Amino acid sequence: MNIVLLEPKDTAQAEWRIHSARQLSHLHKQLNIQVDDTLKVGIRNGKRYLTRIVAIEEQEIRVTPIQQEACPAKLPVTLIVAMPRPKVLRRLIMDSVTLGVERICLTHSYRVDKSYWQTPFLQQLDDYITLGLEQAGDTIVPDIQLYKRFKPFVEDVLPSLIAPLRPAFVAHPYAETAMPHAIEHPCSIIIGPEGGFIPYEVDLLIKNGCQAYHLGSRILRTETAVSYLLGRLFV
Amino acid sequence: MNIVLLEPKDTAQAEWRIHSARQLSHLHKQLNIQVDDTLKVGIRNGKRYLTRIVAIEEQEIRVTPIQQEACPAKLPVTLIVAMPRPKVLRRLIMDSVTLGVERICLTHSYRVDKSYWQTPFLQQLDDYITLGLEQAGDTIVPDIQLYKRFKPFVEDVLPSLIAPLRPAFVAHPYAETAMPHAIEHPCSIIIGPEGGFIPYEVDLLIKNGCQAYHLGSRILRTETAVSYLLGRLFV
Repeated sequence: MNIVLLEPKDTAQAEWRIHSARQLSHLHKQLNIQVDDTLKVGIRNGKRYLTRIVAIEEQEIRVTPIQQEACPAKLPVTLIVAMPRPKVLRRLIMDSVTLGVERICLTHSYRVDKSYWQTPFLQQLDDYITLGLEQAGDTIVPDIQLYKRFKPFVEDVLPSLIAPLRPAFVAHPYAETAMPHAIEHPCSIIIGPEGGFIPYEVDLLIKNGCQAYHLGSRILRTETAVSYLLGRLFV
Repeated sequence: MNIVLLEPKDTAQAEWRIHSARQLSHLHKQLNIQVDDTLKVGIRNGKRYLTRIVAIEEQEIRVTPIQQEACPAKLPVTLIVAMPRPKVLRRLIMDSVTLGVERICLTHSYRVDKSYWQTPFLQQLDDYITLGLEQAGDTIVPDIQLYKRFKPFVEDVLPSLIAPLRPAFVAHPYAETAMPHAIEHPCSIIIGPEGGFIPYEVDLLIKNGCQAYHLGSRILRTETAVSYLLGRLFV
């Protein structure tokens, strides 16, 4: 946690209130904070500030802003990823948010177990986003959308994300050409499930305007592929 | 698991033996394998083969090789990383091995809790390596070394890893220049602990031949930084 992210309502008074158990625990145990220490605080979907700690009580810590700070820019990328196993979902969302992905679309795919859509973890996406933002020092919540049917997503939604200077790249182990690197325009990146997209799905993606590229001869886990690919595409 | 990695002794007979509980469980539950199916099998520190399943018994599965397959090449990189928290260690080693890192050095650093060196997880590095190799389809075990003292490592070991066409890059948030990308030579990359290297450590690294570069204004978790950085450096 490199900033503390607060809801706007907690910053409505002159003294801002930090009162979530998770944040209080981190500030006490990891940072051992004291009155008059400075602390980086962000307002969800708002600005980021350097603040000073003015009061430490059992149930809350209060801070006052000293000066505004710059938020890191987002990457101009839409990440489209086949719904992962529940235990991977948390890390995938956190890391994508930390890395600055602007929009995330979770989609169904033939090799996605239907039970994944029932996971209670999907109710906790906001928490995972907060963790990712606090790690990155960012305040702006990315847009996350769920598409439980693959074909309607690819045929009706995906084409609207594609333009001449906004291509969509599918990471596909059997493509003949290597993924581009150091691009200087926005894009969408599409990552399949464990076991990969089936040929029908790859064909449908290409028919609807996507370009398939390989990422080398090593098969990466979904969450590893996301960071690896973002490091490669945006320099 | 994209190949099954076997010990050389299990491939000494005409029929090779798969008998680890983890591998058997995966082959039955995830792949639902049957006699006469083909299966990718690697021999630890040896070659990789397409095999045929010839017998399925309760305690073992036996295969015979059909033809040799290519192993993916390693990345010409030494990853030097401050010893992470135990629960991060597993993923860090797995992902680094999957991505093809040739050598990994775990070092101490001021902000590394001394208790991290006592974790029983350090006895399981071989298991994490196996998981990383099986994910990548690789068979060659990377070299992993532990350095429990930072200064002797930086002064006595690190200089021997550096050469004109084999630089060492420190990922440092406060460096003025951005990390290079798409390099065409070997290198070492150095990643600090949670909270970063202290100024004394960064100075010592630079004094001993390292170059410090930033990775943008977002602060990444160690394991995210590794995949992101490898994607950026090697294309």
